[in-house]
Amino acid sequence: MGRNLFSFEGGEGSGKSTLILKVAEALRVKGIEVVLTREPGGCPIGQKVREILLDARNSEIVSRAELLLYAAGRAQHVEEVIVPALERGAVVLCDRYCDSTEAYQGYGRGLDLTLIRELNQIATGGIYPQTTFLLDLPPEIGLGRALSRVETASGKEGRFERESLRFHHRVRFGYWQLAAREPRRMFMIDARLSPEGVFEATMKKILGAMKVPRDRAV
Amino acid sequence: MGRNLFSFEGGEGSGKSTLILKVAEALRVKGIEVVLTREPGGCPIGQKVREILLDARNSEIVSRAELLLYAAGRAQHVEEVIVPALERGAVVLCDRYCDSTEAYQGYGRGLDLTLIRELNQIATGGIYPQTTFLLDLPPEIGLGRALSRVETASGKEGRFERESLRFHHRVRFGYWQLAAREPRRMFMIDARLSPEGVFEATMKKILGAMKVPRDRAV
Repeated sequence: MGRNLFSFEGGEGSGKSTLILKVAEALRVKGIEVVLTREPGGCPIGQKVREILLDARNSEIVSRAELLLYAAGRAQHVEEVIVPALERGAVVLCDRYCDSTEAYQGYGRGLDLTLIRELNQIATGGIYPQTTFLLDLPPEIGLGRALSRVETASGKEGRFERESLRFHHRVRFGYWQLAAREPRRMFMIDARLSPEGVFEATMKKILGAMKVPRDRAV
Repeated sequence: MGRNLFSFEGGEGSGKSTLILKVAEALRVKGIEVVLTREPGGCPIGQKVREILLDARNSEIVSRAELLLYAAGRAQHVEEVIVPALERGAVVLCDRYCDSTEAYQGYGRGLDLTLIRELNQIATGGIYPQTTFLLDLPPEIGLGRALSRVETASGKEGRFERESLRFHHRVRFGYWQLAAREPRRMFMIDARLSPEGVFEATMKKILGAMKVPRDRAV
């Protein structure tokens, strides 16, 4: 079911969003239907959940509530966007998915990993990505990029960027743990490579892994 | 911990909200601090969750997401409102709590009861009411009351009222099952009694069950 689902993970400023746009464009040029989505926020209800979660003014959210809100957004997103797209044969590129919750809430904030995995299982209904691209970058570099972006933008989505550097080191360590646990699914890419290098490594992996109807194969 | 926590349950139009206001007033007259709250919505974040849930336009919410949103609102509500109030010795009256989720989402909509109980446990952190007042009423009567109220009000909170009568019969049956499983906690009251009769039965039970500092005891 998750055969054509690909997720993109990594710290702030790792270049995920730019990469996803390029990959989507390259696949579309080949005549492949691509659904580009993100978590949290990939559907109207997920968007409302995202507004609650990412608004820096809501720093009083307790951690269990935060985890449950992420799970709610994910459950809706999976059933409303991801499953229908996969069913009609599209390739789905998802900007953050379950691994973000484990890395940020679990390893970063220290919430119960068993509980997070349990909620991920509930929320996804078992729909996991075929391959997850992990853009790995030292937080010192990524945060520098992200902060300069936040300062020039609305300043509204800066909650995570303002967290301490130690937090982001824990997140990166968490991603490594996930990669170690599922080495076949997690495809780690050094995000310090040139954008072209990252893009080429990603495309090669995706074209080898995805399943498309024969008449559209390239 | 939940010694001074009392929840009020029942179908639409059973008179819960009116009863709670009268009980709160009566306890305050006795010099007892009362915190009156409700689910979903008893805190700013819970209020946002409530807006998503009760807006009739969101009928496209998938059931797992709905369940997780309720749990998120509850987790926040418990830690932000209920626990601090109980810790300072207040009596907390809660308009709907965990049992509503079991009755409406579980018995009413047919969602997995094991999952609901699991999420209730996560959301409450084990804070359950000392006594739950279940205002029992045949749905035909309750719905008539609730519908006439909705038509004169904003019309915004009418999602549940518009559900089929069969749904409300399943909810009522669900409440009975809960009462059968926890007869010591669930205190069932026939909501067809006069409002005075319901109020007196409730007050008698609460005054016998709650724990107040000796100098404020009546």
